[in-house]
Amino acid sequence: MTNQQPWSREEFEAKLRDKGKYYHIKHPYHVLMAEGKLNEDQIRGWVLNRFYYQVTIPRKDAAIMANCPDRETRRMWVQRILDHDGHGDDPGGIEAWIQLGLACGLQREGITSLRHVLPGVRFAVDAYYNFCRTAPWQEAVCSSLTELFAPTIHKQRLAGWPELYPWIKPEGLAYFQKRVSQARRDVEHGLAFTLDYFGQSRQLQERALEILQFKLDVLWTMLDAMWLAYIDNKPPYFNIQE
Amino acid sequence: MTNQQPWSREEFEAKLRDKGKYYHIKHPYHVLMAEGKLNEDQIRGWVLNRFYYQVTIPRKDAAIMANCPDRETRRMWVQRILDHDGHGDDPGGIEAWIQLGLACGLQREGITSLRHVLPGVRFAVDAYYNFCRTAPWQEAVCSSLTELFAPTIHKQRLAGWPELYPWIKPEGLAYFQKRVSQARRDVEHGLAFTLDYFGQSRQLQERALEILQFKLDVLWTMLDAMWLAYIDNKPPYFNIQE
Repeated sequence: MTNQQPWSREEFEAKLRDKGKYYHIKHPYHVLMAEGKLNEDQIRGWVLNRFYYQVTIPRKDAAIMANCPDRETRRMWVQRILDHDGHGDDPGGIEAWIQLGLACGLQREGITSLRHVLPGVRFAVDAYYNFCRTAPWQEAVCSSLTELFAPTIHKQRLAGWPELYPWIKPEGLAYFQKRVSQARRDVEHGLAFTLDYFGQSRQLQERALEILQFKLDVLWTMLDAMWLAYIDNKPPYFNIQE
Repeated sequence: MTNQQPWSREEFEAKLRDKGKYYHIKHPYHVLMAEGKLNEDQIRGWVLNRFYYQVTIPRKDAAIMANCPDRETRRMWVQRILDHDGHGDDPGGIEAWIQLGLACGLQREGITSLRHVLPGVRFAVDAYYNFCRTAPWQEAVCSSLTELFAPTIHKQRLAGWPELYPWIKPEGLAYFQKRVSQARRDVEHGLAFTLDYFGQSRQLQERALEILQFKLDVLWTMLDAMWLAYIDNKPPYFNIQE
């Protein structure tokens, strides 16, 4: 099995893109979101929990750079950190997410304290962080490829939310706008690298698909925790008397 | 706040024990289990997923020992590894759990391959492993204190299962029997250590409670993932057409 011919570059890319069918855009939580069926608390719960992912991104990118001896790669990769943490006049993606939270009626401190982050969300995001910290940097690069599927989900929100959720101040949507182009630029590099590096053997190609699936599991599992807490009304310890 | 007097040893122990109200014995999945209301697939799903916790235990214990320069502590702690991995004539706790799986009608390979482990369970267990690997060893010792509450849950299963789940071969319950006394012995050492070490200041005492809560979150979140998959019938990607 490990001696099989590698797939062609086109076949390999098609198999990576086909993983998009498992993207969290299909998760019932997102489906309700796109249909305008979430109430204010369910939108806010998502914004608060997803913030933990946002603040973890630059740390996982720094961990990848810490493992990467290739200066050219680091010169490209550092852009992700600049984008998220902000740099110079740009307040960055984390601040843009806080603005989204404020536009949803949340308080800055309630967002940044992370106290509303569900344990299941924390564990899923930490799994991604720990993967990027301990895996070879080439594998960590591959795990970023869920960005292949991100522009669609951001555009869906930009198109739908103003009408579906009129109570969210429209300036809060700037994060999604910014990520449409950033995600597209980031993924060009990550995809070309993955096709080259993991294209060397069938075994590596299959490993790349496995890594992408792991990352899809992270995103899906985050929404599972939010589903149980905010849709099914079973947050941790919901049934325990104080 | 950090300058407050430490609680007395008795008060501190009482606060640690009071955390038992968040033990996963109260999780709806366990409540159904104790009431005999789980079907065969729901019991098997639990056995398959909980196995990932079992196989992770000796790795987290080895990580704790790797961080611990105190030989006396290591001499005691290694007993946990011997208990779980087996030693000499004792096949150990992991094998006993496999026997539980076989008694439930599962195949050994289906258990040990870990292919039925849900991502949410994996991320929660890995969070525990990563905590023990990266936290100071004293904090990792404290995180083992959920064993304070374990004998009750094991005894509940030993008492109830033969009648509630007559299709499970009774020899499969040996794991629970063994853990009643082992957990009691293990926790005596961990509790005495925690009362001494974290008893030095109010700040440390509060940290100990926070660590114990983290571990309770791990156990609760494992069952959340199983609830969604096996009770609510929403395993990952349940709604995706292949």
